[in-house]
Amino acid sequence: MDWEQIEARLDLLLAEKRHGQMRGALMMVNPVDIAEYMKKLDAEKLLLMFRILPKDVSAEVFSYMDPDQRETLVGSIADKEITALISDMFVDDAVDFLEELPANAVKRVLQNTDPQTRAIINQFLKYPENSAGSLMTIEYCEFAPEMNVRDALQTIKETGVDKETVYTLYLVDRQRKLVGTVPLHKALVVDVDTPLLKLVDPRVIAVNTLDDQEVVADTVRKYHLLSIPVVDGEGRMVGIITSDDIMDVIEEENTEDFEKMSGLAPAEEPYFKSSMFKLAWNRLPWLMILMLASVLSGAIISRFESVLAVNILLSASIPMLMNTGGNCGQQASTLMVRGIALGEVQFTDIMKAIWTELRVGILVGFALSMVTFVRLLMLNQASVLIALTISFSLYATVVIAKSIGCALPLVAQRLNIDPALAASPLITTLVDAASLLIFFGIASHLVMA
Amino acid sequence: MDWEQIEARLDLLLAEKRHGQMRGALMMVNPVDIAEYMKKLDAEKLLLMFRILPKDVSAEVFSYMDPDQRETLVGSIADKEITALISDMFVDDAVDFLEELPANAVKRVLQNTDPQTRAIINQFLKYPENSAGSLMTIEYCEFAPEMNVRDALQTIKETGVDKETVYTLYLVDRQRKLVGTVPLHKALVVDVDTPLLKLVDPRVIAVNTLDDQEVVADTVRKYHLLSIPVVDGEGRMVGIITSDDIMDVIEEENTEDFEKMSGLAPAEEPYFKSSMFKLAWNRLPWLMILMLASVLSGAIISRFESVLAVNILLSASIPMLMNTGGNCGQQASTLMVRGIALGEVQFTDIMKAIWTELRVGILVGFALSMVTFVRLLMLNQASVLIALTISFSLYATVVIAKSIGCALPLVAQRLNIDPALAASPLITTLVDAASLLIFFGIASHLVMA
Repeated sequence: MDWEQIEARLDLLLAEKRHGQMRGALMMVNPVDIAEYMKKLDAEKLLLMFRILPKDVSAEVFSYMDPDQRETLVGSIADKEITALISDMFVDDAVDFLEELPANAVKRVLQNTDPQTRAIINQFLKYPENSAGSLMTIEYCEFAPEMNVRDALQTIKETGVDKETVYTLYLVDRQRKLVGTVPLHKALVVDVDTPLLKLVDPRVIAVNTLDDQEVVADTVRKYHLLSIPVVDGEGRMVGIITSDDIMDVIEEENTEDFEKMSGLAPAEEPYFKSSMFKLAWNRLPWLMILMLASVLSGAIISRFESVLAVNILLSASIPMLMNTGGNCGQQASTLMVRGIALGEVQFTDIMKAIWTELRVGILVGFALSMVTFVRLLMLNQASVLIALTISFSLYATVVIAKSIGCALPLVAQRLNIDPALAASPLITTLVDAASLLIFFGIASHLVMA
Repeated sequence: MDWEQIEARLDLLLAEKRHGQMRGALMMVNPVDIAEYMKKLDAEKLLLMFRILPKDVSAEVFSYMDPDQRETLVGSIADKEITALISDMFVDDAVDFLEELPANAVKRVLQNTDPQTRAIINQFLKYPENSAGSLMTIEYCEFAPEMNVRDALQTIKETGVDKETVYTLYLVDRQRKLVGTVPLHKALVVDVDTPLLKLVDPRVIAVNTLDDQEVVADTVRKYHLLSIPVVDGEGRMVGIITSDDIMDVIEEENTEDFEKMSGLAPAEEPYFKSSMFKLAWNRLPWLMILMLASVLSGAIISRFESVLAVNILLSASIPMLMNTGGNCGQQASTLMVRGIALGEVQFTDIMKAIWTELRVGILVGFALSMVTFVRLLMLNQASVLIALTISFSLYATVVIAKSIGCALPLVAQRLNIDPALAASPLITTLVDAASLLIFFGIASHLVMA
C-alpha cells in the first residue's frame, strides 16, 4: 500500500468513527507518518485521533507533532492525560515540548507531573538554549565498572525498555565519573563472563552541559558516534545526546548560516508558521543597514559626476563592476565560511588563503576583463582608452573582492563573531565602495588626463 | 592529558624511534585523532607510523586519512599489505578509497585482493556517484524470519565482529526480500525464546540503490534511523547505510547548496587541496554569465541617460536601489531554498508563498522607503518630486524583488532544476534589471513631466 491509499483509508475510518479498526490500521503506520497525517486535522478530529492512538505510540507521535498542534491538544485534554504523556516521553522531548508552550500551560503541565520528573524537567529548562544540556536526555544505561557482560545484559533486560539507546554502555564509577564506554556489539561477541573493563574504550569523548550544540554536532560527526555522553562542570555524567538529534542540529546550524549569509535574522519557526510581522522584522535590520551603507556608493558616484559625463559607457559599466565585484567577494567568502564550518580552514591559514585568492583573482580577473575589453571595442565601439579604463577597473575589482571576501570571515572568526555574519551582504557593500573608488581613481587619471 | 601533550609525546617517540612505546601510546588515542596527527607527517614518517599502528586499528585509521596521504602510502607499501588493508576495511570505505585513486593504482590494488572481494568492489564501483548504492556497505547482520532471539544473539556472536552495525536485525526471507526489522534493544529486553516475528516492525523503510544520497539523508533524518536498508530494483536487500555516513552526506549537500547559491561550481575537494586552476575554473562560468547579464542593466542606464541628467541624486540612488533589491530577493530565495531542502515548502505552496512575500514586501518596503524619503529631504535637500520618485521606486523594487525571489526557486524545483541554482546571483541580476526599469519608468513620468 502506498501512502495515498493509507491516507484515504485513515480518512474513511476517521469519518465513519470506526475506532477499533482505526487503531489496527495505525499499528501499520510509522509514528512519524502518523504525526504527518495529523497535521491536516482540525482541533476536534485531532483530539479524537490522539485518543484512538495505541497507548505505547501516543507519546512518540506527540513528540513528532507540530508545536501549535501540541498546544491545541494540551488545551483540550485532561490533566491526567498530560501527566501520562509527559512521563511516557523521553526527557529531551518533554523539555523541547515545554520550551514551546506558553508559561501558564507549562505551569499546568508541571503541576500534574510527579515531583521527581518535575525536578528533572525544571533543571533541564535552566540550561541555556542550544546548549548540550538542553539537547541531552537522561534515558541512557549506566553500568558499574566491576560488572561483566552477563550483568550488563541483565541490567539492559531489566531497565532497557525505556532507554533512548542501549547501544553504548557507559561505565560510571561511584563518584559518577565516566570511566569509559563499551560499544554493545563488542559485548555481544565475547563470552558473557568477560569483565566490562576488558572491553572498555577509555578514550572518553564527551561534551560539557554548557557546550554549544555546534560543538556537539562537530564532535559527533568527527568521531562517527551514535551517541555522546554529556558531563557537568565536575566531570560527572549527567546525560547523553543521540545522533538522530544531532542531524537536526546540523540542519539547524546550516539554516542559521544560510540566513546570516543572506542578511536574515535567524528564524525560530518554519516559514509558513511565522507571522507576517515576524518575517518582516527578521529581514528589516540588515536591509536597513545595507541600504544606508549603499548611500556611500551613491555619494562616490555624485562626487565623480564630472568623470561620468565624459562618456555614457562609464555610467553604463557601474552595474557590471559592482555586480561582478559582489559575486567574486561572495564566492570567496562562501568558501571560507564553509571551510571554517567543516573544520578545513582556520584563522592561522589567513595568509595562505589570501595568497590563494589573490592568484585565483588574477586568473579569473584576466578572463573577465579580456572579454569585457573585446566587448567594449567590438559591440559598443568604445575608444581604446575607455575600454582600457573599464577593463582595468574590473580586473582590480575582482582581485580586491576576492581578497576581502576571503579575509573577512577569517577575521570575524578570530574576533569570535560568526563568520557567516561577516559574509555575503556586508562584503557586497564593502566591495561596491571599493570597486567604485578604483573605477573613478583609474578613470579620472586616464580619461580626464 | 590534553591533545597538545599527546601530540608532543607522539612527536618525541616517533623521533627517537621508540616503536614499542609508540604502539602503546597509540592504543590510548582515538583512530580519528591518529589520522589527524598523521596529516603533518612527511612520506617517510607516514610509512613508519603506519607500520607501527596496532593491526586492528590500521584499516580504520587508513579510512580517516587524507586522500593524498592514502595515495602516498599505497605507493610505498607492499602489495600484500594493501590486500590486508582492503580486506580489513568496510566495503563502503574501501570503495570510497578506490574512487579517489588514479586508475593504475586501482588496478594494482584490485589485483591483490581475493576474487570475492574484488567482485563485490567492482560491482560497487559501478553505482552512480552520490547514489545510495555507492554509499552503502554490505557488513550488516541478516536473519531468517523463523529465528528466535536466542538464535539471533548466537548469530551476532558468531558473525557480528566484522559488521558495521548489529543494532538493527534485518529479517530477510528466502527470496532475499526484506520482511521487516527488529531493533536490537527490543530483542534484549524479552525472553530469549521469543520469536523474532513477534518483535518485527513490518513498516519497512528502505531506499533503492539508485536513489540519490539526498533522498537517503532526508529519509534517515525524518524517521530518526540509525541505519537504513538498501534494496535493488527487485526489492532484494543488498546493503545498509549507517547514520554516521549520513551526517557527512548532509554536510556535503549543504555545501553544494551554499556553493550554488554563491555562483560556484560544486567543488570535489577541500579548499586547500584544490589547485589554483580548479578553483578559478569553478568560479568562472557563473561570473562570466552574470557579468554579461549585468551589461543589460548598463544598457538600461544608457537608454535613460537624459533622465539621469535631470538630477545627480538620481544616478547616486542606483547602487542603493540595486543593492536593496538584490538583498530582498536573496532573503526570499534563501528562505524558499531552505524550506524546500527541509521539506517545509513545496511547489504547490507557490501562491501562498508569493502572497506572503507580497505582504512582507509591503511592510518592509514601507519602512525602507520612508527612511529614504526622509533622508533625501533632510540630508540631501532633494525636492519632494525627486525624493518621491526615488522612494517610490525603492518601494516597488522591494515588493517585486521579494516576489521574484520566492517564486524562482519553487518554479525551478517544479522543473527539476536544483532550487539553489535558481537562487542568489541569478535573482540579483534579474532584480537589477527590474529595479532599473521601474526606476526609470517612474522617473521619466514624474521628473520629465
